[in-house]
Amino acid sequence: MNQVDSKSFNPTAFLQELFATAISASHPAQTLSKHLPKDTRGSVTVIGAGKAAAAMALTLEQHWKGPITGLVVVPYGHGEACQYVEVIEAAHPVPDEMGVQVSHKIALLTQKLSADDIVICLLSGGGSALLPLPAVGISFQDKQSINTALLRCGAAIDEINCVRKHLSAIKGGRLAQMCAPATIHTYAISDVPGDDPSVIASGPTSPDSTTSEQALAILEKYVITIPKSVREWLNNPHSETPKPHDLAKYNNQFTLISTPQQALNAAASKAQTYGITPWILSDCVEGEAKEVAKVHAAIVQQIANHTQPIKPPCVIISGGETSVTLKGSGRGGRNSEFLLSFILSLTKQPQTQRQVYAIAADTDGIDGSEHNAGCLFQPSTMQQAHLKQLNLGEYLANNDGYSFFELTDDLIITGPTRTNVNDFRAILIY
Amino acid sequence: MNQVDSKSFNPTAFLQELFATAISASHPAQTLSKHLPKDTRGSVTVIGAGKAAAAMALTLEQHWKGPITGLVVVPYGHGEACQYVEVIEAAHPVPDEMGVQVSHKIALLTQKLSADDIVICLLSGGGSALLPLPAVGISFQDKQSINTALLRCGAAIDEINCVRKHLSAIKGGRLAQMCAPATIHTYAISDVPGDDPSVIASGPTSPDSTTSEQALAILEKYVITIPKSVREWLNNPHSETPKPHDLAKYNNQFTLISTPQQALNAAASKAQTYGITPWILSDCVEGEAKEVAKVHAAIVQQIANHTQPIKPPCVIISGGETSVTLKGSGRGGRNSEFLLSFILSLTKQPQTQRQVYAIAADTDGIDGSEHNAGCLFQPSTMQQAHLKQLNLGEYLANNDGYSFFELTDDLIITGPTRTNVNDFRAILIY
Repeated sequence: MNQVDSKSFNPTAFLQELFATAISASHPAQTLSKHLPKDTRGSVTVIGAGKAAAAMALTLEQHWKGPITGLVVVPYGHGEACQYVEVIEAAHPVPDEMGVQVSHKIALLTQKLSADDIVICLLSGGGSALLPLPAVGISFQDKQSINTALLRCGAAIDEINCVRKHLSAIKGGRLAQMCAPATIHTYAISDVPGDDPSVIASGPTSPDSTTSEQALAILEKYVITIPKSVREWLNNPHSETPKPHDLAKYNNQFTLISTPQQALNAAASKAQTYGITPWILSDCVEGEAKEVAKVHAAIVQQIANHTQPIKPPCVIISGGETSVTLKGSGRGGRNSEFLLSFILSLTKQPQTQRQVYAIAADTDGIDGSEHNAGCLFQPSTMQQAHLKQLNLGEYLANNDGYSFFELTDDLIITGPTRTNVNDFRAILIY
Repeated sequence: MNQVDSKSFNPTAFLQELFATAISASHPAQTLSKHLPKDTRGSVTVIGAGKAAAAMALTLEQHWKGPITGLVVVPYGHGEACQYVEVIEAAHPVPDEMGVQVSHKIALLTQKLSADDIVICLLSGGGSALLPLPAVGISFQDKQSINTALLRCGAAIDEINCVRKHLSAIKGGRLAQMCAPATIHTYAISDVPGDDPSVIASGPTSPDSTTSEQALAILEKYVITIPKSVREWLNNPHSETPKPHDLAKYNNQFTLISTPQQALNAAASKAQTYGITPWILSDCVEGEAKEVAKVHAAIVQQIANHTQPIKPPCVIISGGETSVTLKGSGRGGRNSEFLLSFILSLTKQPQTQRQVYAIAADTDGIDGSEHNAGCLFQPSTMQQAHLKQLNLGEYLANNDGYSFFELTDDLIITGPTRTNVNDFRAILIY
């Protein structure tokens, strides 16, 4: 090993430290204040939604000198006690009535603003589900049933987002329209590959490039039953989301304060302090988790067998958002699915002389619907698996990564981190 | 760009040259002779199977000084005219009666050998299907129906191989057993991720670590109807494949003459002559082609947006064997599926300033069951797609990459190359 002192070096603790570094580097407490306007003495209305919204509001309160009022909505369990900003918790990822009520309340807050007013909009991943207020005349039930139908019929995410934005009172730039003519400063934490402002939390303050006509065509393409109210709305010119020229009239600024890339860079710098060469594979990896894992395993083999493109000790770091097509009835999110498939791929390849450790976790602290952020792979993982006669292939086929890593004692539990820059994977080869 | 002269540089020709380099670097004409014994004056019996078997025999004839007799089997269209070695063509990937007859003839050739005899066994990808002779007492039809059932029930490739070897007269080291006590020199071209000798052409001269008991358990696990003859055979101690200690008694040498890694290294060296930084991602990428493509696209984004881990102009090179789960009724192999999904992923991400070109092809010259080796992605691909209103997502959903790239005029047609080191992908970013 290069500079790594093999006696004192703890690979598992090292990977956990990289993950903690990625989280703290993207936490609003670290990243928001430097983006605020120089003059913070004015009065502001704060609105926001997403897993980091309360933490963002708290940080804002600590740095804003002028009077603050407002309301943000976060998923249940992601709240923080703010002094001036009201924090309400609602359901995520499937919206509930509370989400409808809060988003209605947020809409009301924006109604009497003048050109002298300043709105600070705090957005992060999860914000879309937390702002489910339907457009005028459409019931929450109708909106939900269309959403469910779109998810079931295999519509592309772009198509789902187009429809969502056109059936929403808030998304696709409508919130910005409501705030007009006030000045809006949006501060956002990106959890989407590519960091597109119109995708983060479904872009409530960003112009939308899709049209009502397209939304209707998508519903017809998938032969989805369209309630009369929805058809009428989509045929109504008012259903059109604001386009760039509509919002360009106002002072509407968008600032990304935290991105996946930032988190990966911070982890990479941390690795270097250990003398371990970091290699950021990508900040925007997408695809089926168990297949993405096979590619990561192949890259590990290349490093271990051919020291290409870099020599161990090194750590491959990647972010993005993988997905899982459920076929089994097990527990666990995409990160446990990823790691289980990764281990399975490694065990199928000829053994190398190198030691491999890995971590796969969600920076928001919740991997899917379980209470763990993610999981670890270390030598004891395989020892436990052998001892307990766990069949990796069967756990994977049953989408049961959580149970597997629970049994091998490799769950990482952080609780909600109050930030969200999506997946974090680090694989150490040394 | 670094040293690349942008005026005279032709990115498409560059990628095609890398592919041609990978093929020629792994062709037996380039790689076999240096591995032959120093003394080639003895009499040899040549046997062999696979896409490269005839080309290997031809090269051997050119370098072997002593008398040569023998027989090799290749897929239809992969023959070469040899002077001393008989070359017979049979069906691949689904075996036919011709394959049964030829493999029987090969078995007969090995029956009267003494300890003074030398056998040269020439193996390459495709050899398994070309040597379908069943074990004693099992009919070709029964062996085939079990094989088909295993493929249908979703058995893992390891499981399929275990059963195949135990129902075969040739595979899993049995050919070596037949040749004993003669000296065997096996020369192999690897088309398998990991280059395991017992996997290449199902390892006719390599010991097998699986057992008849396991083969029976696999058939029972997937509730496959087991004909009486097969059950009796697998319960017969003679059905056991030779283990390492069985073959260690004989002079049985195995030499890899060409590997995927060799081909990738040659392409990488060629890229360097153009001043383009090569980066070999892995020689053993596996997984669903369209998902593997998404990871490649994410890596391209990272290079284009963040120049991590290398700066353009650069070329990402990878090998291995991806797979396609057929859902549509289109045409094309895994490489056209890969490239179509790759392009689709790129178009979904924010555009970069960089130009991206790509090639994905099979080094054996046949991508799946079509006549093309693979396909290209270049600026004209998207121009043609727009002009002809081709919907990338629909072509991909229908597994119809061949038709797409036929319409954009991007098919690569080489004909059988008479080598086979599996997939070759190169993505140029500049």
